[in-house]
Amino acid sequence: MMMDDDMENGSLGPFQDRLRTFPNMRSKPYVPLIFRVLMGINVRVLFVLFLLGIGVIFYIGASTSPIIVFVFSVCIITFVFAMYLSKWVLAKDEGPPEMAQISDAIRDGAEGFFRTQYGTISKMACLLALVIFSIYLFRRTTPQQESSGIGRATSAYITVAAFLLGALCSGVAGYVGMWVSVRANVRVSSAARRSAREALQVAVRAGGFSAIVVVGMAVIGIAILYSTFYVWLGVDSPGSMKVTDLPLLLVGYGFGASFVALFAQLGGGIFTKAADVGADLVGKVEQGIPEDDPRNPAVIADLVGDNVGDCAARGADLFESIAAEIISAMILGGTMAQRCKIEDPSGFILFPLVVHSFDLVVSSVGILSIRSTRDSSVKVPIEDPMAILQKGYSVTIVLAVLTFGASTRWLLYTEQAPSAWLNFALCGLVGIITAYVFVWITKYYTDYKYEPVRTLALASSTGHGTNIIAGVSLGLESTALPVLVISMSIVSAYWLGQTSGLVDETGNPTGGLFGTAVATMGMLSTAAYVLTMDMFGPIADNAGGIVEMSQQPESVREITDVLDAVGNTTKATTKGFAIGSAALASFLLFSAYMDEVAAFANEPFKQVDIAIPEVFIGGLLGSMLIFLFSAWACSAVGRTAQEVVNEVRRQFIERPGIMEYKEKPDYGRCVAIVASASLREMIKPGALAIISPLVLGFLFRILGYYTGHPLLGAKVVASMLMFATVSGILMALFLNTAGGAWDNAKKFIETGALGGKGSDTHKAAVTGDTVGDPFKDTAGPSIHVLIKMLATITLVMAPIFL
Amino acid sequence: MMMDDDMENGSLGPFQDRLRTFPNMRSKPYVPLIFRVLMGINVRVLFVLFLLGIGVIFYIGASTSPIIVFVFSVCIITFVFAMYLSKWVLAKDEGPPEMAQISDAIRDGAEGFFRTQYGTISKMACLLALVIFSIYLFRRTTPQQESSGIGRATSAYITVAAFLLGALCSGVAGYVGMWVSVRANVRVSSAARRSAREALQVAVRAGGFSAIVVVGMAVIGIAILYSTFYVWLGVDSPGSMKVTDLPLLLVGYGFGASFVALFAQLGGGIFTKAADVGADLVGKVEQGIPEDDPRNPAVIADLVGDNVGDCAARGADLFESIAAEIISAMILGGTMAQRCKIEDPSGFILFPLVVHSFDLVVSSVGILSIRSTRDSSVKVPIEDPMAILQKGYSVTIVLAVLTFGASTRWLLYTEQAPSAWLNFALCGLVGIITAYVFVWITKYYTDYKYEPVRTLALASSTGHGTNIIAGVSLGLESTALPVLVISMSIVSAYWLGQTSGLVDETGNPTGGLFGTAVATMGMLSTAAYVLTMDMFGPIADNAGGIVEMSQQPESVREITDVLDAVGNTTKATTKGFAIGSAALASFLLFSAYMDEVAAFANEPFKQVDIAIPEVFIGGLLGSMLIFLFSAWACSAVGRTAQEVVNEVRRQFIERPGIMEYKEKPDYGRCVAIVASASLREMIKPGALAIISPLVLGFLFRILGYYTGHPLLGAKVVASMLMFATVSGILMALFLNTAGGAWDNAKKFIETGALGGKGSDTHKAAVTGDTVGDPFKDTAGPSIHVLIKMLATITLVMAPIFL
Repeated sequence: MMMDDDMENGSLGPFQDRLRTFPNMRSKPYVPLIFRVLMGINVRVLFVLFLLGIGVIFYIGASTSPIIVFVFSVCIITFVFAMYLSKWVLAKDEGPPEMAQISDAIRDGAEGFFRTQYGTISKMACLLALVIFSIYLFRRTTPQQESSGIGRATSAYITVAAFLLGALCSGVAGYVGMWVSVRANVRVSSAARRSAREALQVAVRAGGFSAIVVVGMAVIGIAILYSTFYVWLGVDSPGSMKVTDLPLLLVGYGFGASFVALFAQLGGGIFTKAADVGADLVGKVEQGIPEDDPRNPAVIADLVGDNVGDCAARGADLFESIAAEIISAMILGGTMAQRCKIEDPSGFILFPLVVHSFDLVVSSVGILSIRSTRDSSVKVPIEDPMAILQKGYSVTIVLAVLTFGASTRWLLYTEQAPSAWLNFALCGLVGIITAYVFVWITKYYTDYKYEPVRTLALASSTGHGTNIIAGVSLGLESTALPVLVISMSIVSAYWLGQTSGLVDETGNPTGGLFGTAVATMGMLSTAAYVLTMDMFGPIADNAGGIVEMSQQPESVREITDVLDAVGNTTKATTKGFAIGSAALASFLLFSAYMDEVAAFANEPFKQVDIAIPEVFIGGLLGSMLIFLFSAWACSAVGRTAQEVVNEVRRQFIERPGIMEYKEKPDYGRCVAIVASASLREMIKPGALAIISPLVLGFLFRILGYYTGHPLLGAKVVASMLMFATVSGILMALFLNTAGGAWDNAKKFIETGALGGKGSDTHKAAVTGDTVGDPFKDTAGPSIHVLIKMLATITLVMAPIFL
Repeated sequence: MMMDDDMENGSLGPFQDRLRTFPNMRSKPYVPLIFRVLMGINVRVLFVLFLLGIGVIFYIGASTSPIIVFVFSVCIITFVFAMYLSKWVLAKDEGPPEMAQISDAIRDGAEGFFRTQYGTISKMACLLALVIFSIYLFRRTTPQQESSGIGRATSAYITVAAFLLGALCSGVAGYVGMWVSVRANVRVSSAARRSAREALQVAVRAGGFSAIVVVGMAVIGIAILYSTFYVWLGVDSPGSMKVTDLPLLLVGYGFGASFVALFAQLGGGIFTKAADVGADLVGKVEQGIPEDDPRNPAVIADLVGDNVGDCAARGADLFESIAAEIISAMILGGTMAQRCKIEDPSGFILFPLVVHSFDLVVSSVGILSIRSTRDSSVKVPIEDPMAILQKGYSVTIVLAVLTFGASTRWLLYTEQAPSAWLNFALCGLVGIITAYVFVWITKYYTDYKYEPVRTLALASSTGHGTNIIAGVSLGLESTALPVLVISMSIVSAYWLGQTSGLVDETGNPTGGLFGTAVATMGMLSTAAYVLTMDMFGPIADNAGGIVEMSQQPESVREITDVLDAVGNTTKATTKGFAIGSAALASFLLFSAYMDEVAAFANEPFKQVDIAIPEVFIGGLLGSMLIFLFSAWACSAVGRTAQEVVNEVRRQFIERPGIMEYKEKPDYGRCVAIVASASLREMIKPGALAIISPLVLGFLFRILGYYTGHPLLGAKVVASMLMFATVSGILMALFLNTAGGAWDNAKKFIETGALGGKGSDTHKAAVTGDTVGDPFKDTAGPSIHVLIKMLATITLVMAPIFL
């Protein structure tokens, strides 16, 4: 009860007290309230309730469309598969007690932070829900809404319900990501004592579990919402809503998801990198002790950070990416089907859900294809884990191409344009190829096998200054190729869509935008496997930390080091995916916004004219928003890291025995410092992102009213959105690539090049790595969430500026 | 003859040979060919020719408008005043021979580099002139041109002539800036031995000379071109061109100016910062010797860099800023006068020339108001030079407000809207206030009296990494306030213009854009004084270097140090001006571009719709251009600095006597390395800036042709321009402020704070300063030139994408 009260008022009390006693006490693991309620119910009752729930879902699905039934079935089957994976992972042993002790401390820290963080986020979400509700109660209704009989109150309920469900699912996705990683890390460490292959398999299956849950939840959540609204509003019966307008009601879900993901990414990102930077600056640079050395007082905070930053935040982030992409594609599918007067539009609307259902299936096959060798008791020589993962990826991608083609034939075939499905299949191929090229470019700029990182490493040999200059230039330069690739894929997918043969009433080709949407889906058609590879990284990183801290032999450490290095590469590529899909999703949501404004204003709203001074200013302010947001995200890490540095220095001075392993450092103090600082620091950038579009739109709406300029607020916001998207893509690419390159330049020098560990060159490279940390793990990944948050908030909050 | 041949083929031969013999040989000072030809002519003949020239100019001016005569007279009077200033400065003594020797070496290096650099630039300019000529020979003509009887050939001649004149004037502006600074530096050093006040006065008058020449040349060049075209084309006589269309012909002048300024800024910026970073990294960080220590082999290169980077490049840069601003305001004035059917539009068109004529007068008064104390032989205690400069600035600004008001009443009064002049006077006031606030914001973020730089200094105490993170955040954050200020001033000036009472035929208010143009003029209405303060900086910096190198007593060094610190602040504020005016000028040129496209296409072209995928891509690529350009500019400095570091390290190792003053370092080798590297490195970013808009426009023109989308190329280029402008403003603000803040954080620590010189905190701060160097002096100032170059190149090259 005490703990719950503390959780309620958001104080960090129990935290500081509890963790100081580490590692001899193990506190009760934290279970969210909803699970505890469920666990309190009799098992049989629960099972009956569960079956009933499934029955209701299927009944609603069946009254909507057979496609929805297919989606439900696939999701439920893969959830069962995910449960098998988690059972398999949890059945592995936790290793010797010293490992379990460390893992317990990490779990405590991560769960404690998660609880407080999500407590804060949920309070903000409730507040925002109230705001949305009252805005919708006072908004004008559109002619469409009036004709379909949806009143103000109904539309307010719908939006708020979708928002809260999105926020809840996003929170659960984050929790699941963290839940499995704090349990799998120690099992990977333990498996690493036996064989590399087994460790790899445990990490992959743990990552696969959360990937499937995250993707599956995005799909099933949207499907449930869609079919519930369908049945509730009596869609397509005379006098009510048309099915092609239905997807627009789901936007609240996307907004809820991106709202939670933004704060999760900010809070988690600040936590993990402040701890990391602080630990490195004193440990590696000043004292010269290795990473994850148990003598470093900030090391547990660093390992906790991997879980809350990389696992929980990335889970919420990718959940949001997929939800935003599905919803925006559904909206476009609906709009296009309506324009082309397609008889049964549900194929076009539900296409994204089917693509991601197949994604779940083919990714499951990919995950299963990574097996340990038959006789796991024999230590085989370390095989390149990257090759193994890549093989699984190839399997997944081949299957994805086939299922994607099948889905287009199944759902996008119409008699009006018999070859349209083929064009859209090609759009999907464009997306898949784009994803491949993106991965290659990211590797080129961040892998030390290639020129750029080697040049960066060489620049370190002339000092800290030239290292930073070279890294910044590398990051800025690395934006060019991805932008060219995105541009080419947008143009070609648009062109394929336009020439698909789908025409509107007046005979104009209309499939262009839907073509780019299909390309985005193609890009994300192996999302679950990509997310698996991403989740694998922090689990391996944590396992390495546990191995290092529990002083295992060198050979075990080697295995986890290899896994960790692979994890770094896979992490970098996922960010590329996330940015690419953010760019496309937000471009698609932008056209949904234009349609929505047109509906409200009851006049065409087809153009955003940047030659009008106010609209130009909107763009200027939108780009500025990205710069300011990045500034605040980075400086939050810098400030918190300084607190950590001072604390670690203090401990080393006050307890000189630490360095000789005679005294135990106070790990809990560092965790508490980082936790409270990151909760404090995540508010400012987050609030900026939410408040500024609303204020801007409202102010210019008033200005437009007095200067006789209708829709000025909506236009300014549209321009802000586009400029913020463009600047955001570039800034995120810059920050992620620079960070990744600095990290690997350091790793390259640590392999013995240019003087190796401990040389001045290495010190300069560590400075670069430190600077890159908040770039690549705090500001960078927050920006692509921010872009989509802006796109959804403008859609949901449009009544304010109209 | 030998030297001229080498100059022709651009080799660096003579350079390396000559400078190695430093400092015992003094080579003949370099005088450009045109001056040598003039000097060869008999003085009396020259005088007669000169009078004749003036007569012709006045005759042409008189047949154009009395306003032009006024402008000519003011320019010629202030040129005479500038000659007085230069005589006054040159009459000062050059100090003891050791000073003169160092100054000679600096002059040799600077003139040698200038010659080779401008040789390369002039070749490129000639090539570009050919390209323009052939494009214009094959372009379509507009209906306006046909009606006014201007054929293809005439318009080709006009554009090329304007382009070449602009390029030539820009080159001369750069040469003048450098000519005076390499002569004034030693005189300031010498004066500093007597009194601080005298040193200040010499530096200010030298800066004032080049400021007046730069601004005056921009004004008189445009006035001559305008009146020549006026007389040549028989403007306003029946069947020929209307006077309101005339300013559009001047765009070539602006393009020529920005073309030269871009390469001057790139080459000079790379030179100065590569030398500076290289010298600091080995000298200060590794060897711990002070800045400008004669033992550092890169010190002469560093001092040469101040002249070619800060003086020559800044002269070309500000020449271009003023030219672009005048031309864009003239175009808008013409368009508006035509729309409102104003009887005598010349007042609106020539208003910018009058504003800058008054600028010359009031700035001259401001410069004269800075006087040495009556008895200069008595050493007075050092007074704060900033206060003295500020007092002169106050005098200037009060006079500027008065003359600005008078000019609006004189030229912008019309009977149609009797109170319009008052509204425009208020626009001017908005501009002046914006400039003030801009200066204040720059100071707040870069002066160590305030919070941000102190926080940055504190971040240095926890290491190199946190220093860089804090500096990057500071720079990113510092974009917010200037953008808000620009936004507010655009909105309010636009509103003042709209409500001025000027209406077009249909009764719509039309003065809005001209209002923003007037605000820009207000902002730049004290340009000559601001430029004086800016030029003062590098002269003082150089003087300090000469004092240090010639081993003068501590008291002399103190005086130059104070002057140098003031110079840093004034430099930072000028950059603020340059960015603010670039933002506004490029927004104005953008609307000129829209008008031009409409004229060519013979259909309205009022909107750039970013909801079209291709147009969105244009924006994405435009923003990317800024990132890539910054990357290449920074990495050029980094690469060249590494070469310098290796050379300096080599010299210290091979000649151990250098550190004990027993051996003379080979200064010439460093100069040669930096010179050849910066000539090589300036090509890539410069070519990118010129070629990419042309390629983009041409490709999308073709794509538009095949997809049945007329004007697609023009639209994509327009969007590219706007996004590049927005991203460029933000990037330039970020780079300049971060660089300035790092510099001053280091200076703050050097005052003894946080451990003072030599501490670890200081070392971290020096790293930040090093990183900031290419940010604030290479990439940052190149970007605002780039923005205007893009705006003018799209105007001049529009036929390619139509």
